[in-house]
Formats: sequence, C-alpha cells, structure tokens
Amino acid sequence: MFRRSFLRIGSVAAGAALTCAGEADAQHPGGHASHGKPAPPSGPVPPSTPVARSEFAAPGQVAVVTPDGVTLPWRLVGGVKVGHLVAEEIEHVFAPGLSATAWGYNGRTPGPTIEAVEGDRVRLYVTNRLPEPTSVHWHGVVVPNGMDGVSGLTQRPIPPGETFVYEFTLRRAGTFMYHSHFDEMVQIAFGMVGMFVVHPRRPLGPPVDRDFVLMTHEWRLEVGARRPNPIEMTDFNVLTFNSKAFPGTQPMLVARGERVRLRLGNLGPMDHHPIHIHGVSFKTTGTDGGFIPPGAQVPESTVLVPVGSTRVIEFVPDEPGDWIVHCHMTHHMMTQMGHNIHSMVGADTKNLDERMRRVAPAYMTMGTTGMGAMTEMNMPVPPNSLPMRGTPGPFSTIDMGGMVTILKVRERPSEADITGYYEHPPGTVAGQADAAQMAADGVDVGTGNHHRS
Amino acid sequence: MFRRSFLRIGSVAAGAALTCAGEADAQHPGGHASHGKPAPPSGPVPPSTPVARSEFAAPGQVAVVTPDGVTLPWRLVGGVKVGHLVAEEIEHVFAPGLSATAWGYNGRTPGPTIEAVEGDRVRLYVTNRLPEPTSVHWHGVVVPNGMDGVSGLTQRPIPPGETFVYEFTLRRAGTFMYHSHFDEMVQIAFGMVGMFVVHPRRPLGPPVDRDFVLMTHEWRLEVGARRPNPIEMTDFNVLTFNSKAFPGTQPMLVARGERVRLRLGNLGPMDHHPIHIHGVSFKTTGTDGGFIPPGAQVPESTVLVPVGSTRVIEFVPDEPGDWIVHCHMTHHMMTQMGHNIHSMVGADTKNLDERMRRVAPAYMTMGTTGMGAMTEMNMPVPPNSLPMRGTPGPFSTIDMGGMVTILKVRERPSEADITGYYEHPPGTVAGQADAAQMAADGVDVGTGNHHRS
Amino acid sequence: MFRRSFLRIGSVAAGAALTCAGEADAQHPGGHASHGKPAPPSGPVPPSTPVARSEFAAPGQVAVVTPDGVTLPWRLVGGVKVGHLVAEEIEHVFAPGLSATAWGYNGRTPGPTIEAVEGDRVRLYVTNRLPEPTSVHWHGVVVPNGMDGVSGLTQRPIPPGETFVYEFTLRRAGTFMYHSHFDEMVQIAFGMVGMFVVHPRRPLGPPVDRDFVLMTHEWRLEVGARRPNPIEMTDFNVLTFNSKAFPGTQPMLVARGERVRLRLGNLGPMDHHPIHIHGVSFKTTGTDGGFIPPGAQVPESTVLVPVGSTRVIEFVPDEPGDWIVHCHMTHHMMTQMGHNIHSMVGADTKNLDERMRRVAPAYMTMGTTGMGAMTEMNMPVPPNSLPMRGTPGPFSTIDMGGMVTILKVRERPSEADITGYYEHPPGTVAGQADAAQMAADGVDVGTGNHHRS
Repeated sequence: MFRRSFLRIGSVAAGAALTCAGEADAQHPGGHASHGKPAPPSGPVPPSTPVARSEFAAPGQVAVVTPDGVTLPWRLVGGVKVGHLVAEEIEHVFAPGLSATAWGYNGRTPGPTIEAVEGDRVRLYVTNRLPEPTSVHWHGVVVPNGMDGVSGLTQRPIPPGETFVYEFTLRRAGTFMYHSHFDEMVQIAFGMVGMFVVHPRRPLGPPVDRDFVLMTHEWRLEVGARRPNPIEMTDFNVLTFNSKAFPGTQPMLVARGERVRLRLGNLGPMDHHPIHIHGVSFKTTGTDGGFIPPGAQVPESTVLVPVGSTRVIEFVPDEPGDWIVHCHMTHHMMTQMGHNIHSMVGADTKNLDERMRRVAPAYMTMGTTGMGAMTEMNMPVPPNSLPMRGTPGPFSTIDMGGMVTILKVRERPSEADITGYYEHPPGTVAGQADAAQMAADGVDVGTGNHHRS
Repeated sequence: MFRRSFLRIGSVAAGAALTCAGEADAQHPGGHASHGKPAPPSGPVPPSTPVARSEFAAPGQVAVVTPDGVTLPWRLVGGVKVGHLVAEEIEHVFAPGLSATAWGYNGRTPGPTIEAVEGDRVRLYVTNRLPEPTSVHWHGVVVPNGMDGVSGLTQRPIPPGETFVYEFTLRRAGTFMYHSHFDEMVQIAFGMVGMFVVHPRRPLGPPVDRDFVLMTHEWRLEVGARRPNPIEMTDFNVLTFNSKAFPGTQPMLVARGERVRLRLGNLGPMDHHPIHIHGVSFKTTGTDGGFIPPGAQVPESTVLVPVGSTRVIEFVPDEPGDWIVHCHMTHHMMTQMGHNIHSMVGADTKNLDERMRRVAPAYMTMGTTGMGAMTEMNMPVPPNSLPMRGTPGPFSTIDMGGMVTILKVRERPSEADITGYYEHPPGTVAGQADAAQMAADGVDVGTGNHHRS
Repeated sequence: MFRRSFLRIGSVAAGAALTCAGEADAQHPGGHASHGKPAPPSGPVPPSTPVARSEFAAPGQVAVVTPDGVTLPWRLVGGVKVGHLVAEEIEHVFAPGLSATAWGYNGRTPGPTIEAVEGDRVRLYVTNRLPEPTSVHWHGVVVPNGMDGVSGLTQRPIPPGETFVYEFTLRRAGTFMYHSHFDEMVQIAFGMVGMFVVHPRRPLGPPVDRDFVLMTHEWRLEVGARRPNPIEMTDFNVLTFNSKAFPGTQPMLVARGERVRLRLGNLGPMDHHPIHIHGVSFKTTGTDGGFIPPGAQVPESTVLVPVGSTRVIEFVPDEPGDWIVHCHMTHHMMTQMGHNIHSMVGADTKNLDERMRRVAPAYMTMGTTGMGAMTEMNMPVPPNSLPMRGTPGPFSTIDMGGMVTILKVRERPSEADITGYYEHPPGTVAGQADAAQMAADGVDVGTGNHHRS
C-alpha cells in the first residue's frame, strides 16, 4: 500500500481523508490514532485524546513516512503527548521466503517511528514482554539524566512483565533514534531500534514535499536458524532498510521536481553504511546533533551513515525513472545465499562435469564464467532463505538484494507506480549499437587492440 | 586522582598550586616539570629550565588533561622546548584484572601527550629501549622532510639502545598525534601512539574551560596470552580509550555550563570509531589538518573518528548527571569475555539441564533468555581476563565495557564526584508506571495487541 | 615515465609537444588521440576527429593525470565526444613479482579515466569481451534513467560479444566514477572500475597546477591463485592505488608552491579508506555530488574515502621532500605476505632453535623481537607473491607496502626525480643525538626512570 501522507499539511484542508491517513492508523484500525479527525480546537481537554496524524508535524511541514513501518500514535493528555512502546518477541519477515524470530517494539522491527514537534512534552510508557530486562535510550535527545535509559547507571532495568514510564520535553528539533540500552549487543542485534523525529516549530530551510525515514541494519542469520546470531561481529549476511531486504523493501514514490527529505538512521551493530542514490545529487542537512547550516551543507551522491548516527539528506529529483538506493559495499547488495558460495570463476570443470553426469545427467558446475548467471537460473534454495540474488525486473533479472530499495520518480505519481516499473520513452535506453553509427563514429570492435587507449 | 589543571590559566594567579599541578608533575615527582614555578621572566637563560605546567598553553587557554595519562614535561634551553620520549616495553593494565605486555613511551601507552604552542621550536629526543628499531612520525605536523620519521625514506631507523633527536618549529596549531613509523603494524598494535596538541597563539573560537584528550584503540588479546596479537585485522576484543577499558577508564568531570573541548584521536590499527556522547549535542571544531571555520562546523551527537584522524569536539553541557561516552559499535562496548560466548537465546535446554544436574546439582545453562543476566551473576572468569560485562552501578549492574567512559556533569564539581555517582533529584528517574496514571493516559498493558500501533 | 600533462593549458602554446602529450597518446601510439594537434577551429566537421589531449579540460584548467593509468581518448563526431570501453579479461601486474588474472576495461584496471567538460554530449560504446554479461553505471552522473546502467532495472545486460551504446549530456561538473552494474560483487572485485572527471566550464575556486586521480581498491589473492577471490568480505591482502601495490605505484611529482588537486575515488568492495598525506594540510573541495563551497571546506591531513565515494582534496606543498601517501589502516600498508605470518614477538625459541639446527644448521626463528627485521632479510617468498614488506629506500629498507605511494615535492621537478629520492640538505635529517647537546639539554638516557614523565 502506498502511504499518502506526504502532501504539505497546510494544503490538505479539502482532502484530509486522502492525505492525512497515517500509516499507523491504516494498518492498525483499532489503535489509538484517529483517521483524519483533528483534535478539538477548544474547550476542556478530555483525559485522553487521540492526536490526528495531520498534527504530527508543525504547520507547513509534512509528516514523515516510514516505508515498511508505522508511526507511533499519540494521545493528548493534559497537554502531554502520551505514547506506548511494548518490547516483545516477534516473527519478522525480511523478504518473501525469509523470516526469523526477532525482538522489536509494538510487533515490529524497527519499532514505530516516534514523531513529535520541538517543545512537545512527551510521556512514553515502555512495557517489557521480553524474557529478560530491557530499557530504552533516546539517542541524540537531550533529556534529564534519569530519563536517559542507561540500565544500571541512570535507572534500573525494566524487569520482564513491568511497565516503566519516561517523561521529558523535546527541547531541540532533530532526527534522533531510540534503542534498547540493556544487553545492548544482543537486543540491538535482534532488532530493538527505532527512529525519533522531532520537527522544528518553524521549518528550517526550504520546506519539503516528502519526508521518509530509513534505518540500516545488518544481521547474521544462519541458513536454517530461527534467530539472528548476536555474537557476529563482521560476517553479516542479511542487510536491510527498515529491517526489510530487497526485494522485500517498499519503494519510495515521489513526483519530479518535489523536494524530498530522506532521514537515514544507523543503529546496526557494526557497519558504517555508504548509501548511494542513483539519479540525484543531494545535500546533507542534518544529523543526530541537529541541523546543518546551509553554508556547511556538502553535496554528495553517496552519504556515509556511521553506526549510531543519522544523516538527513535532501534533493529535488529532475529525471523521472526508477532509481536504485543502496549501500555501496558490494556484499551489502547481496541476499543471504550470495555469501555462501565459492568462487569457480575461471575454473576448468569439463572433466568434473563429465564424470558427474554419469550419475547426474543434468549436472553442470556453475559460476565458471562469473556468477551473474546464477541469478537467472532460479537455483533451488534451502527452506527459509533468499534466492542467491535475482528479482524479476522490467528488462531482465535484477541481480541485487539486501540493503537496496527504489526511488520512483514520476511526473504524476499514482498508486499503480508502486508496483509498476518506469516506462522509458523510446530511444532513451542503452541498447545494442548500430553498425552504421559505429562506423561513422570510428569505433572498431574487431579483434585488434591497437584502436584502444 | 582528579586532575585540577582545567581552570583558565589567566585566572589562577592566587591558586597556582591548586590549579596548575600538571599530571606529569604529580605522578612523577622527580621529573623535569616544576610545580607551578614560572620560568624567570628575564636575565640569562639557564642551560636547562623546566617549563611550568601553567605555561603549556598560550595565555587565556587551558592546558589539556589526558585521562589515565600524562603530559610530556619540557625543559627550556636557549628558547627551545626540549622533551624526551623513551620507547620501551611496559606492563600495561587495561582494567583491574586485565593486563598485558605492551610497547609504549615513557612507561605508558598512549605515550605522554605532547603539548606546545604555535610557533614553538621543539627538540625531541627519542631513546629506543625496544628489542628492535623504531622511529617516530609526527602525524599531521608539517615538518622538514628529514624530521618526518618515516624509516627508510626520511631517516634510518633508530637502532635499539640509541637516541635520535628531532627538531622543528610548530608552524601551525592543531590536534596532531605521534606514533612509531617502523614495523608499524606491530608497533602500533602494541600501543606506540600518543597525542600532540599545538595550541594557537590566540584562541580560535570561544575559549574553553576544560580540554581533554582521548585516544581510541583496538587490541586482540587472547585469554591467557601476555601480548596483544599484532596480526589481527578484524576480530579485536579489547577496546580502549587512552588504552584503558571500562570500568578502568577515568571519568571526565566538568561543571554544568562550562565549555568543554574533547580532542579524540584514533591511531588504532583498523577501525573507524563512532563516538557517541549522551546528554549533549556538540560541534566538530578541528581535525588533524587544523581548525574548522565556525560556518563549516556541523552539530552531531556521534562523531566518526576514522583511523589516522583526530576530531575535536566542543559542547556546553546543561543537564547535570553521569553521561556515558562510548563507541557505538555494539561489540566495542563489550569486555573481552563478551566475545567468547555462544548465543543460546531461545534454546530449550531443560533436558540438558536435568541431565547435567545429576552430576552437577547447581548446573544451569545460561543465556537462554538473552545475555543480560550473565552480567549480574558474577560468572567466574579465567585468570587475566575481564568479567563478561558488568560493573556495579548506582541502580544495578552496568552491562557495558571496553571503549566506554563517563562524562560527569555537576553544578559544582568536587573530588568526591570522581568516584561517586550522580544523585538524581526525586521524581526525575524513569521507573515503574503508576496504575492510575496509566488508566488516565489510556494505556492498556493487557494481553491484547489492539491498542498498539 | 613521467607524465608531463600537468602545466596549465593556457600557458603551453609554445611547448605543446612537451606539455600536452596525454598519457593515452604516449602509451598507445596507434590510438585515437592526437599528439597536440588541435581540432580545426572552423569549417565542416569531419565525421570523426580525434580530440587533442590539450582540450580535455576547459580553458584555464589542466587535464588530469592518472598515475599508472591512462585517459580515454575521444573522437569528435558532429559535436559529440565519442569514446569506447572494452570490458575484458586482462593479465594485471600489481607490483613486480605479483600478478593476477583480472577484469577491466581497455586492457587495464582501473579502466581509462574518462575526462570531459560540463555541458559536453558524450557517446560511450561498451563492448563486452567477458565470458558473462555486463553493463556500466556512471556513478554520480545524473543521466536519463535508461542510461543509468543498472542491469535488469534500466536496461538488459550486454551479452558477451555485443556492443551497447550510452549517450547523455554532462549537465554537472564533478568527480564521478564508472563501474560494472551486473554481477557487481564479482565484477567490481575483479577490477571493473574507473574514474569519470567532468571539469566545470569555468574553474571553481583557485585554479590548480596539477590534477591527479587515484582509486583505492582491496583484493583477496591467495598465494598461488591466479584470480582474486570475489567472495571475500573482510580479509583482503592486496591493497592498491590505481590497482598497483607499493612499491609498484608511480609517484606523483609536483613543484613546491604549486596548487595540487588529488581526486580520490573508492570503488573497492568493502573498506572505507582513510588516506593520510605526510607533509601537507589539505582541504576537501569536492565529492561525487559536486563542489563543496569554500565556506564548508574542512582542513584535514587524513581524509576518509568511503566505499562508493569520491573526495577531491587540494593543497599547496611548501616543504620539499618525499612524502608518503597511504591508507592509515595498518594492514593496508602491508604487502600480501605481511598477513600470512604468526606473531612470535616475545617468544623464547632458544630450545626450538637448537633442536632445529641439528637438522637445519642455519635455522633461526624470526620475529621474536618484532617483525621489522623480516623486511631486511630478504626472506624467500613463494612464486607470484610480494616480499613480506620492504623496498630499498635512501636510508634503509622502507617497510611499507600496499596502498602507499609517494608525493615528490621539488623546487624544480625533473625527470630524474621520478626514480630518485630526495636529497636532504645537511643537518635536516633526524639522527643520532650528540652527547654534549644531550647533557646541555638535561636529557639522561641512563637506566633510571626518575627523569621521565
């Protein structure tokens, strides 16, 4: 489902039902959040009033969209925004065919995106349904020391079955995060992370039309195992955006010429991820420390998001199409099975193949010319694992997986664009060269090497 | 011992004994450095005059403090600051219970912090008491090529038993470093690193009240081994600030509202460390290339310190408390034993436990609900190794270790704050939620999921 | 051979033959490029006109130099710059004594540097002579979606034996890259990468006198293997600049006081490389997203180049000499054999040695005092592998290897400086200390420790 909550809130008076349906609302119809019903503008405040999704950001600013995720609903109680996180074990699907037992908040990993406005007073209940204690640290948010969530140092951990309450005022705007701060190596590896967006009261910099959040994460999931391995330090094999592995990631759909903000957060265990976006040049406008003044903003097409950091980037796409967004570390664009193979490139397997065929007539050693072909052949995979690489694309198999998603830029985005690929205008796709043009261009593809630099 | 040398030097006329006692002086009473005795202002320069700690920075600037370390003393000889580094094997304690044979300078790793002022002429003797040659590179300092310390290329290495001399003028201010530049992979892995701070003649930016240096390092120390393994590339298990692992790290004590500078240096072998500070937002004001103009300074709450780099950050804490400072890579907040375990989370060990108890009645498989409990149970550890994680804290066990220290922010810091934890005002600590308040807030922790986003 | 194409083009009217000989031209005399022959300024455009190397950059700007590499020649056809990349298997020499079967473009890895000017229309033919499909992505260049080169998503992959054509206009200047975007993990690991420099029409910032490009890369090459292992994620053992390992890297020669630009590109598989330059402080002026405004430029002496990123740095060296340029991760300054050893430091091998000498009289366990000595002893190495570390230097063995090169700064650079080392003025090289001076300086190297801080 395509989330529609990206239009500027100031412009949605007549179309609230369309534009303000928050993700949380739509997916959890019985939840706290309303469906476009604004809070009463005057009169006595009821003891507990759901906050409308349209009011999650300050006037003139759009609410954030969490692809494959939700936003935490608020109830307004005596001027305080009240939210509730439940830490619990979940069954998590990384992509069709690959799932695991993980730990998260409110039934998911990452947990719901917390979204509020500078100056808000918030009260956050945390219920622990895990089999061990936990606590929550509000990463980047400056709070009174006793609300910082560091088990042992600033509070006692929340025992299983109990509910603790945190309350503080959001004094600064920024793109923050939250995560477990007890048994951190294990609980973070299992998925106990989330984003915490604090909008400024007044927009800083040019207003944006779309505002997305994506969290990077790396996991070690042995084939056949039900749980990630929290001890792993370097050899991760499931790489995700918002805990989903491509092709399981929901694309981001925007209109050409819109100003797009993407808030990247990294609470993965160990890797600094360089996120590359095709088709645009962007500037980094914020971090988990606040806003970067315009004069200090640096243009990039790849932004390094270190562990424990957020990077807010903004851009205005002006080329329509399907643009890949991915970590540029080559092993992070692979699905799980892509790491469990041995290189056979260049091996002479003729004798081996002949002998094998005596007992298995269809036998053929794979990968001797490279590994790309494996994506085309639908190699069988073990239960609960992803095919090596390979997702059907508009031209042929897309041989990427893992920490990959797609930015869909359209002249006029519609629901159909979520699942449909871009249709290129005739003559704008790289293809086979024309012999006459090659001759006119003086290009010789003969066997000789003399014509090349 | 709490080092007092953080007050602005211009304000210490009446209290020199208290405020100017350098760490080097205090810990090495027979050393070169004086105890607040200023150099004679006129008359013939004696052949070798100790430089007072109060003169290590230019007027109006504070001298740096190296937690768990010292500052190199200077003697003034004919207008040249003369210092002496002795490269030698040492017995180094990472934390109570964990020590190793390391290599360092002047009996320690990191070596003494070298501290001088822009424009100073310095003469540095390096005596080699190691069993193999060495040399010293002044990382980030622009010196004449023959003083650059690259063995083989700019000088011959210093043979064991010999003393070489380097001499150059510090033309630029900045936060630099020094390290071995012979058999670099081994000698750096063994600890041969140090900071080299060059204060500007006049302060750049607002003056600071405190000025700390912290060096990150990663080590591989097998349980039972006496020496770090210099061949390790990825699987490090002892993570340190100034070569100390939490709980062995000395905290940094500051007053609320003071301007604090922290100079982070990374001469570890392989890892770029993202250093996160709770409770503050800071700006990066300098690197090993010099000062960042105010317009280019970026706010953050986590700064990535790449290998071979320095990052100078500044902040004004305004929330009192004990704030954790740590590398955010989850395996870098672990002590040595935290990496030598296997994940049992979710395993059903009931049958195993029953059978084991026939021979060992107290047997219980650990970690099946997570690994946090291990920190509470005082698991026995092998000789010369750190408990898995776990340091007694004010509320319960602090389950962090390794590259972790504490920033202690107090209204009025005193000696007692070094070892004592922050006492939170009543009602400011996250704790168990009140049933009535939860009801008023509309929060339901029943078994149903319908109320959550 | 020293490439001379670094003088400002505007000043070379009388010396075109000397100053404009492009690398491509000089090394491939039968190629497309001319030798200083400018394109006819008027009259009908011939169907295919070679573009002179002197016109690769806009007026007032110098053309880039690729140490150990070449620049792609252009033919001008109807106002379009036409180039040709041939993807193919190659025999690649990393350094004398170490070679492998790799994949590259036009007979080399990295492929030829593509160099053009903002606003240029380019047509790039790509012929696939590999045994599997391929495609080319123009990293950081904003092109029409169908020209983006993502196999499956924006085009079908180029089958073996076929030639595809890409055509687009370079709308923005910047330091971009190109690489395979099919079977990316394998094809990038095998070397299919290159730089793509787009000069601005008018210089941005002060004009530079020299403009170099260096690409970092990491490889896993088992001793005895003919091909890199593309499955490796962390344990790389051949580290390169422009696919050459020191001492195989060509130095960069510049004059003191010149403004030097160095464009660093990282299309290696997995590692973010912190590149440190001795003897200078530089500023980062650009990335793969474009130019950094002067107010946002940060000084450094080590720049982190993340995977999938470019970093353009500029500096004016004012100290003549031979300055090491290297990745500061200690295992990246090692040659291949440096990683295949075990640490024996501190081991007592006397008994072992005595027993071994009964059968092998010359036997001696190495490395017990450190590993530096191994570089001096010319340890025998297996066929096709690099000595552990160690290159003859002007003073003694240089014990560095891998991702290392030299910046040679001279008052008046000449051909002889390429191979010759810097000759230091007398009295400017660190050396043995004089006893009388040590006494006058109060430095005591006796056995006592009392005199040290």
